[in-house]
Order: sequence, then C-alpha cells, then structure tokens
Amino acid sequence: METVKERFTHHLQRMQDLICGSLEQEDGSACFSEDSWQRPGGGGGRTRILQEGSVFEKAGVNFSEVYGKITPPLRSQLQLAGSSFFATGLSIVIHPLNPFVPTTHANVRYFELYDEQGECCDRWFGGGIDLTPYYLFADDCVHFHRTLKACCDRSGPDLYPRLKKQCDEYFVNIHRGREARGVGGIFFDHCRPGNGSTAAFWLDFTEECSRSFLPAYLPIVDRRKNIPYTPRHRTWQEIRRGRYVEFNLMYDRGTLFGLKTGGRTESILMSLPPAVRFQYNHVPEPGSEEEKLVTILKNPVDWA
Amino acid sequence: METVKERFTHHLQRMQDLICGSLEQEDGSACFSEDSWQRPGGGGGRTRILQEGSVFEKAGVNFSEVYGKITPPLRSQLQLAGSSFFATGLSIVIHPLNPFVPTTHANVRYFELYDEQGECCDRWFGGGIDLTPYYLFADDCVHFHRTLKACCDRSGPDLYPRLKKQCDEYFVNIHRGREARGVGGIFFDHCRPGNGSTAAFWLDFTEECSRSFLPAYLPIVDRRKNIPYTPRHRTWQEIRRGRYVEFNLMYDRGTLFGLKTGGRTESILMSLPPAVRFQYNHVPEPGSEEEKLVTILKNPVDWA
Repeated sequence: METVKERFTHHLQRMQDLICGSLEQEDGSACFSEDSWQRPGGGGGRTRILQEGSVFEKAGVNFSEVYGKITPPLRSQLQLAGSSFFATGLSIVIHPLNPFVPTTHANVRYFELYDEQGECCDRWFGGGIDLTPYYLFADDCVHFHRTLKACCDRSGPDLYPRLKKQCDEYFVNIHRGREARGVGGIFFDHCRPGNGSTAAFWLDFTEECSRSFLPAYLPIVDRRKNIPYTPRHRTWQEIRRGRYVEFNLMYDRGTLFGLKTGGRTESILMSLPPAVRFQYNHVPEPGSEEEKLVTILKNPVDWA
Repeated sequence: METVKERFTHHLQRMQDLICGSLEQEDGSACFSEDSWQRPGGGGGRTRILQEGSVFEKAGVNFSEVYGKITPPLRSQLQLAGSSFFATGLSIVIHPLNPFVPTTHANVRYFELYDEQGECCDRWFGGGIDLTPYYLFADDCVHFHRTLKACCDRSGPDLYPRLKKQCDEYFVNIHRGREARGVGGIFFDHCRPGNGSTAAFWLDFTEECSRSFLPAYLPIVDRRKNIPYTPRHRTWQEIRRGRYVEFNLMYDRGTLFGLKTGGRTESILMSLPPAVRFQYNHVPEPGSEEEKLVTILKNPVDWA
C-alpha cells in the first residue's frame, strides 16, 4: 500500500505536469524549461521555469522532495527535535506581463520528522494560494476567493474563514504599515493529525487545494490578458513588484528557510519578479486606481 | 565646549551639504530634493534624494539624529542594556545610470547609550565606504582602495588592513556561495574608547572617513560616465542590482535594524536600486567581462 509521502509526492509530480501544460497553453508562445537538481544531503527537485512569454513574463512551477539528517543549521531553522526528515512540496509563482493580470503564488508541502531509531515522530501538511493584483477588479477577487472557499468547504465549513484570516495575517509587509502583499487567499501550516482530524484528512485537503489552483487563477488571466496598457500601468506594476520582493526576502518563511538551510538558491528565488522598480516615496494620485488598490491592501476584504 | 555628539552632528550636516552639492555638480542636470521628518519617539532627519539625473539614476544622502527611550523592540534589536539612547549618522547610496560607473555606499554613525540616571554608559562609532562595480576597471578599484588606505593610515598603520578585511567579510551574499556585493572598501562598527584609543581618536577618524568619500568616488564617476553602453550592459547592471537588493533586505544590519525599530521606511529603503531584474539562473558567458567580475567577487583582491 502507498504511504502518505509516496501518494502525495506522486500527486505533486502529476500536478506539476498538469499546471505547466495548462500555463503553456494559456501563454501560447513560451514553454517551460526544466532543471533537475540533486541535494547533496539527500533528494532533489525538478525546477520548471518559463520566461518572456506572451502572457507570462516569468513563471516557476517547482517540485522538490528532499530528505536526510537534520544538521545544526537546519535544526536552528526548524526549532524542532528530530534526527532526520523528509519534505516534499510544489511551489508556483507566476508574474504576468500585463499589469492588469495579477501575480499569483501557490504552495503545498508535506513534512515528516524521524527520531534516532528512524521512527516517524511528527508530520504535517502546509500550503496556501494567494493573489497579488496591480489593479483591482472586484470580480477577480470574488472568483478567486469563492473557488478557494468551495475547495475548503468540501472538507469542512470552518476551514475557509480560518485559512483566509491566516493568509491575511501572514502576507504582510510590517515595515509598510502592515500593507498586505495582495488580496489574500488561504494559508495553512503545521496541520497535523489530531483534534479529530486524521493525516488522511489533511492529505485529501492539501491535494484538493493544489487542484483548485488552475480553476482559481486561469479564468482571471483569460479575461484580463488582452486589456491594453500604457507605460504608466507598467511602472505601477514594477513598483508594486518591489513590495513583493521586500516581503519575500524579509519575511517569507519558506524563502528564508530554504536559503539558510542550503536549498538551491536559483529554485527558491524564482519567486522574484523579472523587472522591478524601487522609487523613492512613490505616492499614488488621490482618487486613482492605484490608490484604490493600496487602500484595499491595508484593509482586507471578505471577498467570498 | 562642544560635546562629541554636538561636534559630530554638525560635521555630518555640513558633509551632507557638501556631498549633495558635489553630486549635483557632477550630474549636471538633476537636483536633490529634501524631506525633513520627525521621529515620534524623538529626533528626526533630513532625507535628500536625487532621481533620474543624467549621471545618477538614484542617489540618497540622508542625515538623521534620533534619540529617546529604548523600547522593547529596540532593545531586542540592539541586544544591549540601557534606558535611553542617542544616534546620529549620514548614509549615502548612489546608483548611477551608466553600467560602467559603479554603485557606491557610505555610512558613518555615532551611538550613545544612557543608564536610568541619564548617565552615558556606552558609546561607539561605526562606518564604512564600499564600491559595487558592474564592470571591473582595476584602476578604479585601486584608486578607491588607495584613497581609503591613505585615510586610514593617517590614523594608524594597522587600520586599513583590519577594516578592509571586515568589509570583505560583511558585504557578502551567503546564499550566493559567499559572493561579495562589490569590491569592498572599509567597514567598522562598535569602535569604543579603550585599548589605548580615545573617543577623540574615533571621532577624528570617522570624520576623516566621511571626508574621503568624495575623493574616493568622484574621480571614478568622472572617467567612466561617458563610456557608451548597450542594452546588454544595462541588463547585466540590472541583474547585479538584484544581488544588491538581496544583500540589503536579507543581511544588512542597518536596514533591518532601522525597519524593525520603526525607522522611516522610505528613508531606509532609498538604498534600493531604481530598476532591477531578477532572471532565473543567469550565468555569464565564459571569458566575458561579466564573468570576470563574478570571479573577483568570490575572491577578494588586495587592491591597495
């Protein structure tokens, strides 16, 4: 019989194929290229990147499955006891060219911890899907959140409100007056068997999340990708991408954990946007579309 | 009689005027604009920014003088006992337009710590000047380091080798295989009276450092600013600026200290380059000028 880690790992690899194929079709011109890499301490990954497409300026869909001894730097990052570990995950970050198409990020992951006898002593699931628009289309936010809510509701009625709140609390640039990175989505971590839920419950739910990514995002791409834009829209997109960089390099646990524990730097930093602008003290014009976005980012909305 | 903090503060304000004036003259078209700001807990600063000049794409020359109670977040960042503090500093970051002109950064600072009775219980100077070229001109590195060495040598023969080494060790992107941010310079911190040196010694030396900035940097700008460049050179500059962003947001103590203790975000993040590119797994062509730079950044050179 398949173990949890075998089933989830196979699922992630199939999802990577499916998602890359669908994004290539949506783009219509560029293709993903793959770098397979090995981790010196055990395991490795398949990094797939698409650059300079007609629709997607930079997209990464990365699978990894790593395992091995818990070294001292890993231990200090994890802050957990344990002798060895297994971790698998799929990470997606998409930076479209057109400023009217939002950036999106999705990640699902599974972690097992073993004691000195090699017995599994802890295991958990985590994940999240969130949206970062440059211009606000309420329809898009509603569609995105309703798709995620429907996904959550299939596993239980309390999930979406809880995971939506966690997302709003996590993706925040504290040094920007607690400005959110985007309009949120769902976020969960350290979801263990217990409290009435089994490992099978979290496995099913996390797989379901990964299946919700394309239906949550692609319809938005489809209806916004041909809107004409000007250099002004592009400048705003590049300035906002600067905030994306600030969050990822200063706060994102996955990024910092990966980089500080000897992960593959180029695979981790595929999340950074292709062209970015840092302008001193840029303030959107009062009443502009740009200002409307920033107002929403400081006051999370119940979109679903 | 003027106290150390009065003398140093006045010196920094005069240096800010002198440096801004000289940079405007070198640029020939753009001017600095000033934002004065107040810190809610005490003190404030004068942020001066020049953007979209003919020579300088973005330059910041910031003076600040802040003081007040040591709040819990400040205490955890400082990791020092003390009831209140005083800190003053001048920070300079210059991002030229032409990829053949290097980026530079300089900072000088002075800190005083007081006990509950308001008595000064600790004080120290810090600072540094370093150079980040996109293309390597050995002449420029030699001139820059010799100017800093001459500055150090006026205070003692052991200073330059020690401060040069500290600079090479500090400005490093650990997650990039310990790649240096640039070709170094000098760096010093927590320089206290004691061990045979007085506060007056560090005060004189730190002032002397700030006076060395223009003669170390301007001649380099002058001889490189009119070299013609192509989009290829510009792309490389933007990619390397990405590494600058990675260092500043992930490792730079001044940046993280400022942002985590409620400093003025826009003044602190003026250091980020104006236009930046994050390209997946960019590898310079073998034998190219771009590759030569990267080789040097992984193997610090004794330029002086």
